[in-house]
Amino acid sequence: MEKNSPSVNFPKIVIVGGGFGGIQLAKKLRDQEVQILMLDRHNYHTFQPLLYQVATGGLEADSIAFPLRKIFKGQKNFLFRNAEVTSINPERKIVTTNIGDYSYDYLVLATGSDSNYFGSRELEHFTMPMKTIPEALNLRSMILQNLEEALIETDPDVKKGLLNFVVVGGGPTGVELSGSLSELKRHVLKKDYPELDISEINIYLIEGSPVLLGPMSPQSQRHSKEFLIEMGVNVITGVTVTSYDGQVIKLSNNTEIITKNVLWSAGVKGEVPEGVPKDKIVRGGRIKVDQFNRIEGYKDIFAIGDVASMQTEEYPNGHPGVAPAAVQQGKHLAKNFIKVLNNEPPEPFKYFDKGSMATIGRNRAVVDLGKIRFQGVFAWFVWMFVHLMSLVGFRNKLVVLVNWIWSYFSLDRGTRLIIRRFNRESMREDTSGK
Amino acid sequence: MEKNSPSVNFPKIVIVGGGFGGIQLAKKLRDQEVQILMLDRHNYHTFQPLLYQVATGGLEADSIAFPLRKIFKGQKNFLFRNAEVTSINPERKIVTTNIGDYSYDYLVLATGSDSNYFGSRELEHFTMPMKTIPEALNLRSMILQNLEEALIETDPDVKKGLLNFVVVGGGPTGVELSGSLSELKRHVLKKDYPELDISEINIYLIEGSPVLLGPMSPQSQRHSKEFLIEMGVNVITGVTVTSYDGQVIKLSNNTEIITKNVLWSAGVKGEVPEGVPKDKIVRGGRIKVDQFNRIEGYKDIFAIGDVASMQTEEYPNGHPGVAPAAVQQGKHLAKNFIKVLNNEPPEPFKYFDKGSMATIGRNRAVVDLGKIRFQGVFAWFVWMFVHLMSLVGFRNKLVVLVNWIWSYFSLDRGTRLIIRRFNRESMREDTSGK
Repeated sequence: MEKNSPSVNFPKIVIVGGGFGGIQLAKKLRDQEVQILMLDRHNYHTFQPLLYQVATGGLEADSIAFPLRKIFKGQKNFLFRNAEVTSINPERKIVTTNIGDYSYDYLVLATGSDSNYFGSRELEHFTMPMKTIPEALNLRSMILQNLEEALIETDPDVKKGLLNFVVVGGGPTGVELSGSLSELKRHVLKKDYPELDISEINIYLIEGSPVLLGPMSPQSQRHSKEFLIEMGVNVITGVTVTSYDGQVIKLSNNTEIITKNVLWSAGVKGEVPEGVPKDKIVRGGRIKVDQFNRIEGYKDIFAIGDVASMQTEEYPNGHPGVAPAAVQQGKHLAKNFIKVLNNEPPEPFKYFDKGSMATIGRNRAVVDLGKIRFQGVFAWFVWMFVHLMSLVGFRNKLVVLVNWIWSYFSLDRGTRLIIRRFNRESMREDTSGK
Repeated sequence: MEKNSPSVNFPKIVIVGGGFGGIQLAKKLRDQEVQILMLDRHNYHTFQPLLYQVATGGLEADSIAFPLRKIFKGQKNFLFRNAEVTSINPERKIVTTNIGDYSYDYLVLATGSDSNYFGSRELEHFTMPMKTIPEALNLRSMILQNLEEALIETDPDVKKGLLNFVVVGGGPTGVELSGSLSELKRHVLKKDYPELDISEINIYLIEGSPVLLGPMSPQSQRHSKEFLIEMGVNVITGVTVTSYDGQVIKLSNNTEIITKNVLWSAGVKGEVPEGVPKDKIVRGGRIKVDQFNRIEGYKDIFAIGDVASMQTEEYPNGHPGVAPAAVQQGKHLAKNFIKVLNNEPPEPFKYFDKGSMATIGRNRAVVDLGKIRFQGVFAWFVWMFVHLMSLVGFRNKLVVLVNWIWSYFSLDRGTRLIIRRFNRESMREDTSGK
């Protein structure tokens, strides 16, 4: 069943995913003679780099999300459907979704990545991921619910489990999340829970490799670790998780930590729909693409951003799964579409590494800009400025700025609310509205 | 089981509910020799007068809620428990909750009100209430989901049902909600859904009595109706709902409207816990109290705010269920507790009617201040100022102000996001985080 197909004869480009790559691609094709159909299971774009601030009560979810329809307001060659893609059929040139099938002339997979548990069902069930806004809100609810429970818990071991927080994975997400938890503990929980001995709250950061922030400079790796230790986070590197049953997490160095709170940021894998040939899926569950972002063997299917693995000499495992890579690939693919429409040959993609940065806490961040590396207060302001400017929408920028300024002076967080209760067993909340 | 009872011998006041009344009572007892325990099923205070703006995408939920623990930060005689009260036992002087029993010396019920379906299970199941933040968010999701569905619907009758919005109840909530829906339609949806013929979206406001805003002046009643009609809302007064099966709503004038969207604001009833003697429950499901807010026949149980019905000559059915009445009763009861602690006789409560107001839309509000009545732009600014000042917390005031200023100039709404999908059948959403 084909629904609402526009009748004009311009080539139809179906973009799956309204993340950083997908929106750039669609924007840059604004004035072209193409029909664009964007499919996303959410009706909004998520600014993933700030999810950790939603999870720790620093920002409202709505201020880091932006309605996709609004981004493309007035773009006449653009259609949006709030749909979940279940599979693709390259032979019939059809995408199947929960609301019906859509045909395409060109298909672009910009589906991003999801948490990677490396095959462990146990870890997938018991740990908390943080890749989407509902996941970040679940995490916020769980943290606050466990604190409330700790107050009335009489069994000291159970109480310990409620107050131990373990972040697994020392990439930017894990570093930012554990730093933010430490600030929540020291500035907010101390005042909110006077009955609780705040020193009973322990935050652990577990990283399998010997260093934090793997792809950054040794200087930034060292400083981020020092910052976290100063802030009271127990940083454990060179150690992996061997099991977690919802009660006790076991590590490869034979340490056991009793905890109800395990936050999973140890890896991602490409979000590949059914129908993509298995032999095209490479390391990290990403789809192997050529230098034009084409899936090998297909002239009409492309992949960009986190889900794509363009292997080059400099990046033998594909480009880093970061927003700038997705943005650049989206823009570049748009250019190539325009070239092809004008019967010009497409150009190979070249990644421009703008540098990387991570924030650990108030006045503490690390920045690598090529050979220039710095950390501390100035790095923190640079981090804030870059993230603020990257947010989609003036209202979002304004609300986030207001929240940050207010938090800076008050040392407080605005949104520590359990709006939907989290229940691990059912992975659902009580939404009766009570 | 009695948990965490402080051991000091000051009298223990248990307050059930952190609404307008409960927080004033606890605040005013700050420096007194009492132990206060507040129980609430949410960990936040909800500013209910602005729920309709959350439901229609104008404000983020977090900006009209405030963490209860934070309100009482540093108040040494105050304890909070995030607990749902299931029943009270006046004989044993115990409150039973989902996390255990708590004893009291004095019990104050400040539980507020819930939607009243006047016994109809059908209406309770199929219509959407808006008394809590999760309910307002469900409403927002449902409205947006139904618009997305309308786009791909080919059956014209089903499509009509998705695009007809019926608000039942012409009190302030119904008037504000239908006005806000009309603005959403004209300013936002027109741009967001260019494929949709916006004139197919119809908004109805159904009120059983002959006038809108029953308790306000005839002048305000007339103006609010005129404003709504100008804004394209179909206002139907003097007509009640006879049935609604999820597809077609039937009215007492034999009109039938096909609709998937029925928003229920036709009445409230007191939220009375089990254990309150049935003969103390009067009109509107409220608890009859004497002029000291004491439940008749008890020296140690009180009720304040929406759940209390203090029948006086001027208010034979109790005071109006509005925030100022709850605030005044909370403050007054605190004063009386202090008097009793000092062996002075308590004073009877006297309600000071500050007037009432309702906003219909941009530049359109009605205000009654005693004999002074006005409407239009100035009334709208007064409405905004009063509501902004009544919000708890500086951050919330700031974020709401930023949103309002931004909306005023952009004619836009910031938060039209389906963050949790709404599913009527299960009254739950997909919270897998996808």
